[in-house]
Amino acid sequence: MKTLILVRHGESAWNKLNLFTGWTDVDLTENGMKEAFEAGMLLKEEGFRPEQCFTSYLKRAIKTLNQILDAMDMDYLPVEKSWRLNEKSYGAIQGLNKAETAQKYGDEQVLLWRRSFDVQPPALDLHDSRSPRVDHRYDEIPDSQIPLTESLKDTIARLMPYYKNNIMEAFKHHDTVMVVAHGNSLRGIVKELKNMSNEEIIKFNIPTAVPYIFKFDNDMSLCEDYFLGNQEEIARKMQSVANQAKGK
Amino acid sequence: MKTLILVRHGESAWNKLNLFTGWTDVDLTENGMKEAFEAGMLLKEEGFRPEQCFTSYLKRAIKTLNQILDAMDMDYLPVEKSWRLNEKSYGAIQGLNKAETAQKYGDEQVLLWRRSFDVQPPALDLHDSRSPRVDHRYDEIPDSQIPLTESLKDTIARLMPYYKNNIMEAFKHHDTVMVVAHGNSLRGIVKELKNMSNEEIIKFNIPTAVPYIFKFDNDMSLCEDYFLGNQEEIARKMQSVANQAKGK
Repeated sequence: MKTLILVRHGESAWNKLNLFTGWTDVDLTENGMKEAFEAGMLLKEEGFRPEQCFTSYLKRAIKTLNQILDAMDMDYLPVEKSWRLNEKSYGAIQGLNKAETAQKYGDEQVLLWRRSFDVQPPALDLHDSRSPRVDHRYDEIPDSQIPLTESLKDTIARLMPYYKNNIMEAFKHHDTVMVVAHGNSLRGIVKELKNMSNEEIIKFNIPTAVPYIFKFDNDMSLCEDYFLGNQEEIARKMQSVANQAKGK
Repeated sequence: MKTLILVRHGESAWNKLNLFTGWTDVDLTENGMKEAFEAGMLLKEEGFRPEQCFTSYLKRAIKTLNQILDAMDMDYLPVEKSWRLNEKSYGAIQGLNKAETAQKYGDEQVLLWRRSFDVQPPALDLHDSRSPRVDHRYDEIPDSQIPLTESLKDTIARLMPYYKNNIMEAFKHHDTVMVVAHGNSLRGIVKELKNMSNEEIIKFNIPTAVPYIFKFDNDMSLCEDYFLGNQEEIARKMQSVANQAKGK
């Protein structure tokens, strides 16, 4: 039996302000830190024992993972970080308010930008102050691959090599692997694991800081998947994510 | 120019209680978390830009590193963890109070156990509840190498392969490397870098959460080394560490 644990980062400052975040390196709120610690306590109580962890280059995911590991008393676990697990780039709408953007462009356009499979928001200029090109942590990414905007399709395309060569590869040596990342990079993994259509994945909302458990047999065929925790609380969290892009 | 940054973890709960800690996985105090964050702020203000970090399997070092990286806004940096960077094992005196142990065995014996080069404290039984053998994180260490007690000489012996093959090797790809570890594992590194005698290193106290900077030329010859920060405060911290083993 093999186990993959997916966790979306806890509440960030910009989730709370309802801004498009994307690759902006926004911190967790106090509540986000607490949510993350509670997710770790839950995993510990339920007896999960990850052996290898993966996360993005963004602090809201990294700090969520650190909190989870600390709650589990497993701070010592190996952690591999990759830009390929980063959130979808929202390009030139990064930093804009979701509700205001919805009022200006309409709910439908914003939902497309957030949740269509292949429609990209307007791109950043390569040398925009928000461009990953001017951030040293991304020096390893060549200009030709640096995301200036992304559709979900683009996010999945840059995620997949890492998913296959690093995350799935880890099951050759380990029984339990944990990935702490973002709404859209995790959507890419869930779509692949559950063979979801483009339409299904757009409508699928992943709640923050809730462990999403995938169990496989030893041939890595998926046996079951479920969210760990209080199911009513989880449903409430999923609805809250779905409501964020709607204008008032 | 190459730079190595050494940092000893911030104040832990057992530092405060004045107990022999060794491989016990004791947490930082609030003050320890704060000290660590301030060390990160200082490194950031002084323009240090590490590219690779190393730490132990013990949470007081890992969380010190996490706090430093967060203060520097460099949470994304690669971190490699190794048991070879752990504190010296204090064997069967782990968990005992330093002042009481000094009263019982005498300052001299305790100073030998803490600070002699090659005198080991009494060993743990392999299956003692405090033995690393009963802790899954150390499954990778064969019985023949598992530390049940250590002199500083032993600590250095198990540290050196890692120091040479991982930490020094990192300078082939990076200009700045950071190691966050423990009083005695860092002593091993300092002894090697500064060609100190066994007697010199015993008397050398490393203050908590103070960045210790080593600058090398491109051939890795040491050019200078210094503690970063307010020098009076650092001297006070070094004296406080030296006083801990003395009976009252």
